[in-house]
Amino acid sequence: MTEHAHNRLRVVRAGIDTYQQPVVYMHRDCPVCRSEGFAALTRLQMQVGAQQVIATLNVVTGDHLAVDEVALSDAAWSAVTPVDGAFATFQHPEPAASARALRAKVFGARLNDADYLALMRDTADNGLSDIELAAFVTACAGERLDHAETLALTRAMVAVGQTLDWGGGPVLDKHCVGGLPGNRTTPIVVAIVAALGHCIPKTSSRAITSPAGTADTMEVMAPVALDLAAMRRVVEREGGCIVWGGNVRLSPADDVLIRVERPLDFDSDGQLVASVLSKKVAAGASHVLIDMPVGPTAKVRSDAAAQALTERLTATGMAMGLNLAVHRTDGRQPVGIGIGPALEARDVMAVLRVAPDAPADLRTRALAVAGALLDLAPGTSPGQGLALATQALDSGRAWAKFLAICEAQGGFTEPREAPYQAPVLAPRAGRVGAIDNRRLAKLAKLAGAPGAAMAGLACTLRLGDPVTAGQPLYTVHAQSPGELDYALAYARAHPEIVFLEAT
Amino acid sequence: MTEHAHNRLRVVRAGIDTYQQPVVYMHRDCPVCRSEGFAALTRLQMQVGAQQVIATLNVVTGDHLAVDEVALSDAAWSAVTPVDGAFATFQHPEPAASARALRAKVFGARLNDADYLALMRDTADNGLSDIELAAFVTACAGERLDHAETLALTRAMVAVGQTLDWGGGPVLDKHCVGGLPGNRTTPIVVAIVAALGHCIPKTSSRAITSPAGTADTMEVMAPVALDLAAMRRVVEREGGCIVWGGNVRLSPADDVLIRVERPLDFDSDGQLVASVLSKKVAAGASHVLIDMPVGPTAKVRSDAAAQALTERLTATGMAMGLNLAVHRTDGRQPVGIGIGPALEARDVMAVLRVAPDAPADLRTRALAVAGALLDLAPGTSPGQGLALATQALDSGRAWAKFLAICEAQGGFTEPREAPYQAPVLAPRAGRVGAIDNRRLAKLAKLAGAPGAAMAGLACTLRLGDPVTAGQPLYTVHAQSPGELDYALAYARAHPEIVFLEAT
Repeated sequence: MTEHAHNRLRVVRAGIDTYQQPVVYMHRDCPVCRSEGFAALTRLQMQVGAQQVIATLNVVTGDHLAVDEVALSDAAWSAVTPVDGAFATFQHPEPAASARALRAKVFGARLNDADYLALMRDTADNGLSDIELAAFVTACAGERLDHAETLALTRAMVAVGQTLDWGGGPVLDKHCVGGLPGNRTTPIVVAIVAALGHCIPKTSSRAITSPAGTADTMEVMAPVALDLAAMRRVVEREGGCIVWGGNVRLSPADDVLIRVERPLDFDSDGQLVASVLSKKVAAGASHVLIDMPVGPTAKVRSDAAAQALTERLTATGMAMGLNLAVHRTDGRQPVGIGIGPALEARDVMAVLRVAPDAPADLRTRALAVAGALLDLAPGTSPGQGLALATQALDSGRAWAKFLAICEAQGGFTEPREAPYQAPVLAPRAGRVGAIDNRRLAKLAKLAGAPGAAMAGLACTLRLGDPVTAGQPLYTVHAQSPGELDYALAYARAHPEIVFLEAT
Repeated sequence: MTEHAHNRLRVVRAGIDTYQQPVVYMHRDCPVCRSEGFAALTRLQMQVGAQQVIATLNVVTGDHLAVDEVALSDAAWSAVTPVDGAFATFQHPEPAASARALRAKVFGARLNDADYLALMRDTADNGLSDIELAAFVTACAGERLDHAETLALTRAMVAVGQTLDWGGGPVLDKHCVGGLPGNRTTPIVVAIVAALGHCIPKTSSRAITSPAGTADTMEVMAPVALDLAAMRRVVEREGGCIVWGGNVRLSPADDVLIRVERPLDFDSDGQLVASVLSKKVAAGASHVLIDMPVGPTAKVRSDAAAQALTERLTATGMAMGLNLAVHRTDGRQPVGIGIGPALEARDVMAVLRVAPDAPADLRTRALAVAGALLDLAPGTSPGQGLALATQALDSGRAWAKFLAICEAQGGFTEPREAPYQAPVLAPRAGRVGAIDNRRLAKLAKLAGAPGAAMAGLACTLRLGDPVTAGQPLYTVHAQSPGELDYALAYARAHPEIVFLEAT
C-alpha cells in the first residue's frame, strides 16, 4: 500500500524498556493517528529509511509528546536504528501470512510444512503479537503436535535462521531437557570433550522457566554474548565454547517464542523437540546426546512421558539427519548444592577443579553424560567413553581446557557471594522424603535468580538424609533485602518444599 | 507479603492509553525496581490507599521520570483513582489462584466448577495477563470445552459479575450469533416487543471481530454507555432499552476475555455459549431467542456446526433455567444495505419508519425474530407472534417506541454520512454467485469501522442479481483518505469478494 505525505513523524527515543516487543508512542491528536485511524494497541508497520518493524501503538493522551513526533521504545529503537532527525512512515501491516494457519491450528487442524514455515517466518520477523504467539504455543501444547508436525516445525525453525558450518568434520553437542535445578553439567562436559580433541561449539539458552540457564551460569565466569565471528575464533582456537545462542541468531523464531513461554511457564513436547533440535541442526551438530532427567517434579515426570518424548526426539532427530541418543537420568532431586547462576557456577568449578568438597552427584552426572556423548562420537570404542571422560577430568586437562575457553571468550572471573543470606530451618526432626524441584525453583526465582546472578539457594540435603529439628534445610541467597523477604515468606508458606518423613 | 518503607513511590499520570491493561512506568534506578528486583514486563501488585490493581511494568530508561515517581497509564490510573500527591506501594503479586487450572486446561485436562470460578474471578479482577488470557481462550477453542465445562464456565461468568432483577415478571431477550454483516435486527425487535408491552432490557456488545456491534450501531442514534441506574430508569419508563453491556458490569470476565478475542479474531463454541448465556442470565432474562444465521462464510458455517451449537446452547440454557429457543436463518449473504455503525443505523431506521426503500431482507428477518420471540413469551397464542410483530411495525407503534427509548437513553440523533466515498466496480458482466461475508467485514474494518462510525460499505446486490461490466458492486465509506485507500487496495487485491458467475 502506498505511503502518504501526511504519514511522516519525527522519531524520538521514548526511553522505555518494553522487553522484546517494539512499542511506539503517538499523540492522540497526531495526524497519523487521525488519518490512518490508528488506536491504542493497533499493530502498525513503521519504516525508517530502509528499516522496517511491526510495532504496537500506545496512544499518548498527555502533553509530553509533540503531535508530529513518534516516540520509540528501546526495542523499537534498536529494530530501526534511526539516525538523528530521522522520520518514520506508517501503514497498516498486511495481515500476517500465517494468520490463517494460526487460526486453523487453534481449532485443531494439522498444519503442513508451508504453514509452519509461514508461522516461523512471521514469528522471527516479529509479525505476530504476543497474544498470537501465546495462542500458537497453547495450540501446540500437550499432544496437539504430531510427529510430522513436529518435524515440520523443526525444519521451519531452522529455515528462518542461519546455519553454522564447521567444515564437515564430526561436531558434538549435548542438551539437557531441563526441569532439574542445579543440573549444570554442560560446562564440565564441554571442557572434557574439547580436552579430548573433539569439536563441541555449544550454544546455550538463558533461563526460560528455571532460576538459571546454562548461559546465565556461564556468564558468571566468562562473557557469553559472543557474535558468530567471535564464537568461531573461540572454537577454532579451543575446539569448544559455551556461548549464549541468542546473539548467534540460531533458530531466532525459537528465541521469540521463549518470550511468551517464559511468562506462561510452560512449553509443549512438540515445541520442546523443535526448539532443541532446531538449535542443534542450526549449530551444525552431527552427534547429539540428550540428557533427560525423569522424576515426579522434574520437567519429564514419568517413564511414560520420557518414552513418548524420547521417541519424538529420536524420530525427529533421525529425520533431521542427526546421530542422536537419549540418556535418561534420575530427576528426583536437585543436583549439586547451588541453585542460581553464581551458586551453580561455584559447583561447576568445584567439580572441574576436582576439589574434595565438589558435589559428587554433579561430577557423576557430568562424567556419565560426557561418557555417553563420547561413546556416540566417531573414534571411540563403545563403552570407553566414561573412562576417557574420567581421565580427562581427574588429570586436570578438563579444568585447563575450561579456563582456556573462558579466556578465549573474553576472560575468566571468579563468581562472588550474595550479600544477603538466611537459612530455612527444619520445623521438626525427620528424614528427607521428597524435595519439590518446582517450588525450589520458584523460591530461587523469588530470591532474584536469574536476574540477580548471585541470588538463589544452597541445599546440601539429599533424599533419605536424617534431619534434626532446627537444622538448616537450605540457605537462601539474595542481592536485596526485599527479595530475601519474598523468598523467605514463600518458604514459610510452603514448609513441605523439603518434605520430612517421621523416622 | 509485608510492605517495605522503601517501597513507596509518588503517583503521577503517564498520560498513555494502553487500552484496558494497566501499565505502570518506573525509572530503571528507582528504589522499588532495585530493591524488589522488578524488571520490564514484571506483573506487580500496586496499592494506592484502599485500591489495588495488578499492572505490567515498563521500565523508563530515559530521564523524564523521577526515580521516586511511578507513572500510571490511563487504565492503571482509573483502576486506583489516586488523589493529589498520593503514594503507591508495590509487591510481587501472589501467583494467580487459577494458574494451576489454566496450565491444566492448556494441557487438555477437564476443569471443574471451582477451577472455572477461580479462572473467571482472576479474569474479572485483571489477575491474568493478556498472554495468559490468550492461552485460556485457545485452550478452550474448538471442541476443547465439553457441555459440563461450558456450563461451569457460564455459571462462573455469572457468579463474578452482578445480576439484574426486574421484579419477577417475564423478561424477554434475544441474541444473534453474529458473523453476518448488517444483520442489525436488535433495535427493531426491541422496539416491536416493547411496543407490545413486554419487558426487554437489552444489553448489547460492541464489535468483537465484526465491523459493528449492536452497541456501536445504536450509539450512532442514541447514548448507549448507560450505568445500571440509568438503564433501570429507561426500562421502567419504556419497557425496553438498547444499551452497551460493558458499563453495566454484567459478566465482566467476558468483557475482559473480549480484549484478547478481538485481536485474535476468534472465539470458540463453548466460550460463545458461556459469553452469550452468562450475559442473558446476568441481565435477568427469562425468555431468550437465539438468532443463528448459517452459511459458508457466516460464523456458523454448516448445518452440522449449527446443530452442535444449538444443542450446546439449549442444554446450557436449560441448565441455567432459561426458556430458550434457537431460530436458524439464512446466512449466505449480508443483510440490509450498509455495513458499519452509521450505515447499519440508516437501514434500521428505514425499516422502523416503514420507508418504501427500506431493505426488505432486514425487515423480514426482524419480523421473523420478533415473531419467534413473541411466540416464546407467555400470553401469546403460538404462531401469532409474526402477525403481532408486523402489526406493531406497520402501525408505526414500533418507531414511536424506538424514538421514546432513544429519548429516555439521552436523546435521538440522526446518523450522518461519511465524507469520503468510492464505488468498487464490476470487472466484467455476470451474475452474483457468492458474497464473501468475512472479506466484506474485513474491508469495512480497513475502511475504519467500527472506530470510525460513518465508515464501512453499502451494497445493494443480492445472490443471483445480474451485473453489467463497470457497474458498482458496492460503495466504500470512510472518514479519512488513508482508510479509504486501504479499503480500496484490499478490494483490488480480492476481486472475488463479490463473485460473478458467467451468465
